Amino acid sequence: MLKIVVAGPRGNMGQEAVKMVANEEAFELVAVVDIEHNGLKMKDVPSMLPLDVPIFEDMNDCFQQVNADILIDLTAPEAGKKHMKIAFENGVRPVVGTTGFTDEDVKELSDIAEDKKIGAIIAPNFAVGAILMMKFSQMAARYLPDVEIIEQHHDRKLDAPSGTAVKTAQMITEVREKKSQGHPDEKETLQGARGADFDGLHIHSVRLPGLVAHQEVIFGGVGQTLKIRHDSLNRESFMPGVKLACETVMKIDVLVYGLEHIIE
Amino acid sequence: MLKIVVAGPRGNMGQEAVKMVANEEAFELVAVVDIEHNGLKMKDVPSMLPLDVPIFEDMNDCFQQVNADILIDLTAPEAGKKHMKIAFENGVRPVVGTTGFTDEDVKELSDIAEDKKIGAIIAPNFAVGAILMMKFSQMAARYLPDVEIIEQHHDRKLDAPSGTAVKTAQMITEVREKKSQGHPDEKETLQGARGADFDGLHIHSVRLPGLVAHQEVIFGGVGQTLKIRHDSLNRESFMPGVKLACETVMKIDVLVYGLEHIIE
Amino acid sequence: MLKIVVAGPRGNMGQEAVKMVANEEAFELVAVVDIEHNGLKMKDVPSMLPLDVPIFEDMNDCFQQVNADILIDLTAPEAGKKHMKIAFENGVRPVVGTTGFTDEDVKELSDIAEDKKIGAIIAPNFAVGAILMMKFSQMAARYLPDVEIIEQHHDRKLDAPSGTAVKTAQMITEVREKKSQGHPDEKETLQGARGADFDGLHIHSVRLPGLVAHQEVIFGGVGQTLKIRHDSLNRESFMPGVKLACETVMKIDVLVYGLEHIIE
Amino acid sequence: MLKIVVAGPRGNMGQEAVKMVANEEAFELVAVVDIEHNGLKMKDVPSMLPLDVPIFEDMNDCFQQVNADILIDLTAPEAGKKHMKIAFENGVRPVVGTTGFTDEDVKELSDIAEDKKIGAIIAPNFAVGAILMMKFSQMAARYLPDVEIIEQHHDRKLDAPSGTAVKTAQMITEVREKKSQGHPDEKETLQGARGADFDGLHIHSVRLPGLVAHQEVIFGGVGQTLKIRHDSLNRESFMPGVKLACETVMKIDVLVYGLEHIIE
Repeated sequence: MLKIVVAGPRGNMGQEAVKMVANEEAFELVAVVDIEHNGLKMKDVPSMLPLDVPIFEDMNDCFQQVNADILIDLTAPEAGKKHMKIAFENGVRPVVGTTGFTDEDVKELSDIAEDKKIGAIIAPNFAVGAILMMKFSQMAARYLPDVEIIEQHHDRKLDAPSGTAVKTAQMITEVREKKSQGHPDEKETLQGARGADFDGLHIHSVRLPGLVAHQEVIFGGVGQTLKIRHDSLNRESFMPGVKLACETVMKIDVLVYGLEHIIE
Repeated sequence: MLKIVVAGPRGNMGQEAVKMVANEEAFELVAVVDIEHNGLKMKDVPSMLPLDVPIFEDMNDCFQQVNADILIDLTAPEAGKKHMKIAFENGVRPVVGTTGFTDEDVKELSDIAEDKKIGAIIAPNFAVGAILMMKFSQMAARYLPDVEIIEQHHDRKLDAPSGTAVKTAQMITEVREKKSQGHPDEKETLQGARGADFDGLHIHSVRLPGLVAHQEVIFGGVGQTLKIRHDSLNRESFMPGVKLACETVMKIDVLVYGLEHIIE
Repeated sequence: MLKIVVAGPRGNMGQEAVKMVANEEAFELVAVVDIEHNGLKMKDVPSMLPLDVPIFEDMNDCFQQVNADILIDLTAPEAGKKHMKIAFENGVRPVVGTTGFTDEDVKELSDIAEDKKIGAIIAPNFAVGAILMMKFSQMAARYLPDVEIIEQHHDRKLDAPSGTAVKTAQMITEVREKKSQGHPDEKETLQGARGADFDGLHIHSVRLPGLVAHQEVIFGGVGQTLKIRHDSLNRESFMPGVKLACETVMKIDVLVYGLEHIIE
Repeated sequence: MLKIVVAGPRGNMGQEAVKMVANEEAFELVAVVDIEHNGLKMKDVPSMLPLDVPIFEDMNDCFQQVNADILIDLTAPEAGKKHMKIAFENGVRPVVGTTGFTDEDVKELSDIAEDKKIGAIIAPNFAVGAILMMKFSQMAARYLPDVEIIEQHHDRKLDAPSGTAVKTAQMITEVREKKSQGHPDEKETLQGARGADFDGLHIHSVRLPGLVAHQEVIFGGVGQTLKIRHDSLNRESFMPGVKLACETVMKIDVLVYGLEHIIE
């Protein structure tokens, strides 16, 4: 049974992570690290699950008093970095779900992990389905290089295209030869109809009430099309990724950045 | 049994129409009007079906010698107009599938039909599925006014968006109050991502090998989406529309322009 | 501005209705009828919106003290029937969203409405998108009679197929000639592959985590397919239907059962 | 430039292969092997492309007279086996697209290839898109083990489910732990609604006019779904797979059975 500490247990992701760890048979929630409530049990705090699990404000303190295998950190980049270092010093493997680490941060933390031979995973995106979509898209583009992306989100989203669409396009253009799609003489009778051009690949952004977060990647070859689509409804969808990261971090002795590198 | 003459029997649409009329139990192919082969039978012409059906070059001639209820005309606008007049004079009801009639043409032919109380149908588009898609889209827009159109075609198509997409957008904007969709502050980080703007409604054009002719109209409301999609593979898809027009033209005594007006 | 009373303001639908009426410019929430909290204001009850709107336990009482145009009733069939009668007596037009009325109930209430020339609407389903899907499906089946239904729900749903799928199939089989779909000699090498047979029309039920409530109706004709799909995420999706019913009930002087009859 | 011989140049697949090899810049069509027309050129035979390429009836004869790198064999299993052996003897690498080889056949041919260190590829299915769909489905099932398959074909197809659907289901059940999907207490109010059960995984077969050959694999996880869909329109869709096999066969020195093993 893996002994797990969750830092940031009251955030959106943190609440889901606490629930997942508490319910998973192979996992045991041994402590949470919060910015308040030091010395209390989770069951003493109304907004937390009624568990008999201790709360710490200081991470060093936490690792002194409880025996842990893994730290799931869902706080912020600054805190996350600090927490990772403390985990490394205590032989605890970190699984970190915050975005915003710089390349230097990752390099520094990676060196510590390698030095101490302790596994660690930082994942800006824990949605396994989205990562599979991106990975499959990259694989498919080698064989079917003509591709367009349609991403669909609720109409309160400000930017278009979505970050996931741009990341997918980047991964695809890395593996295919440079090409410009569509008929060379095609022309838009209404400007914008053909979408955004990302290195010859077209991206279309739909915004409507009733949508949440969806993306379809369409590959076209003579006589056939292949479509890969991900639909995301809520943050619970991240938990299979967090679980996978916990299982994997026990088997590695380096730092891995990005869930796509642990999915085979 | 309805006695039918087909004009233009060797064109793409014409070949399909001949096949349909020959196979339909309630229809009888009594003659074809071609620009050559006068006096022969269809079975004498290698590129035609081996039927014992006479070929005429002159339409007056045709109607003198065979008794017909309906003329299916799949020639060109100039010929189509002339053929319709001859049909009216002979009490034959025309079903015409050519585009390019002017408003004056339609007015003139409509007056003749009304005067003689003879039914007639001119349809620039016989694809029943496409017409249902447009009709339903217009109906839905009254109740779910937020809508985007994604049309998808093979990558040899030159213009974007497609004529069907623009027609659909027009029909939708006719019935909904003027509105601009998406977040008022939304911005494109890649130009064109949000597609073409047609009176506040966004249209996206996908072009890929392996696609034929497809359109999806997506309506979004709080907590729900409604999608209407038409996929067209080939010209055979027009035949149910031609058949419907033949059945309907026998029951009306005016000229109807556009298949959407005979679909309820 | 239409003056509206909501009965059942703390149920799932009721809460959404209160929010909708409070936010809609053309509507004014003048009172709510609850089974407790008589004499209080909504703002006095923690689980209600902080509005200065009176609460009544007795509907007669309510209509004595406030001037109302419409009663939105989201209680239960027994209460709903009683409430409708009181509304009729007070010249208030009822919009009722409960299921479970018997044919006799509807007949009796319909007679009162006709007698008093007061409009009323009872709708077992307020999801405009779902109703449009069913209505369009029935319309399309006249022209493209070959159709299959795929409904998709979360995997906690017990029965298959869904009530909506069966209702859609019924509406379709009402308008098409009796037919058995698929190849006459087709055979299942794995039993159940071809789904459920409803009068020759096939229905398929998908159950997976991550799904909510979805239905796709696919029409096939030679060379083309037409698809109508509805995706429902939550109860908020019912509110456009409630709003439409409120607007319509003011213009009619009979009882209408089923939202499909007020959608054109 | 790879010198290629095509055997079976007048079959459905063969015609497409001849066209592909003739048009591909890196390929050169040096001969075709047919069951008649010995000694003629392709341009002498009306049903062939007008190319200045010699026709042989005997494969030994062919390899004596032309210098070839690759044999693309699209004949029948018996002939294919014989042709492969002759190719091996002449140092020519075979790419074979016939189904029906027994395990013993494959073993025997594999031993020859290994012995002579000559690459060879036998592929019962050259549709790259379909193979990617199956491969991705297997990969995804490790992380999202709840899955259902919907396959859709024209209504002249006799068997349900399709071979591709069954193959996909097999590949998925190989990698996921045994599980039975849907609610344990779910019940069909119409028999067959939940489709065919393949080891706990459900398969649904849709048959309609207007469809060609389509398959969608739907993975569901809490809060998300992932869909992989392949649409196939015609035999041309096999050519990218044949091309890939030709490129790959030059780099290997064993026999590979199944295109999925050369796609990474």
